[in-house]
Amino acid sequence: MTNTKKEQIVVLQDDREPEVQIMSDLQNWNVTFERKRLVCGDYVYKNLIIERKTMDDFCQSILDKRMISQTEKMREKQREGCECFIIVIGRIKDRKIDIHENCVLGKLCSLIYKHNIKVLMVDDEFQFLYCLRNLCDKYDFVNNEMSKMSKTNEN
Amino acid sequence: MTNTKKEQIVVLQDDREPEVQIMSDLQNWNVTFERKRLVCGDYVYKNLIIERKTMDDFCQSILDKRMISQTEKMREKQREGCECFIIVIGRIKDRKIDIHENCVLGKLCSLIYKHNIKVLMVDDEFQFLYCLRNLCDKYDFVNNEMSKMSKTNEN
Repeated sequence: MTNTKKEQIVVLQDDREPEVQIMSDLQNWNVTFERKRLVCGDYVYKNLIIERKTMDDFCQSILDKRMISQTEKMREKQREGCECFIIVIGRIKDRKIDIHENCVLGKLCSLIYKHNIKVLMVDDEFQFLYCLRNLCDKYDFVNNEMSKMSKTNEN
Repeated sequence: MTNTKKEQIVVLQDDREPEVQIMSDLQNWNVTFERKRLVCGDYVYKNLIIERKTMDDFCQSILDKRMISQTEKMREKQREGCECFIIVIGRIKDRKIDIHENCVLGKLCSLIYKHNIKVLMVDDEFQFLYCLRNLCDKYDFVNNEMSKMSKTNEN
């Protein structure tokens, strides 16, 4: 973590997401969450949509086919110009859900390759939070650069 | 693993890649490796390029900046129409290289978001092999579908 004070940002958070686990390190990252019911993803910052899943959630949503409808919603959002991420917390070997590891790997390959959804895999909630803030910063950086470029082209 | 016999495929493998770890389960996947010196990636199947990295390799290549030139090569290949993947084996918490976890996470976010490189993270060599075969199959499936579609459009 750097000492540079980060600009305060507001991220929308689905009101069904648990509040507790994300509070402890929140102040370090200068992120405020605004809780509301989200149609797609658990966290939304501008056009950046992030679905947060523990490895067991991820496995369960493959088994009960929720992953299919979530993927469809994300693809719809991508067509509208959004960037969609799934951040999976935990590793495949530690799953407690009864699902073959090849099913999990196959779904990961399918999301990344066939559906072009960006998947990040992290070890814990702290890493999740870091990536959330980091992606928001990169989103702003990329979009500021693009807006500068289009202004240069206009002149 | 299904019982359906998979079609035999040939994957180019960089001749600097270790041979041993990938031999044991190879027959299950019907993959033959042809070893040759590759300019980009460690494994190549048609226009699919896969860079295989243990977590410590990955960390080391961030520190010694090799990751920057590898990313540049991959972006060049993407512009030529290739699909580029990095498969990282192992998890961040288990790294033995002296690098802050935020640097590793930041690099992952950057590869995935800013450079649009597809990154898969797996637990072990066996999972790596499964993903390698799975991605080759998906590559063929996607490209067969696309060629069918273009034929339909021609008629």
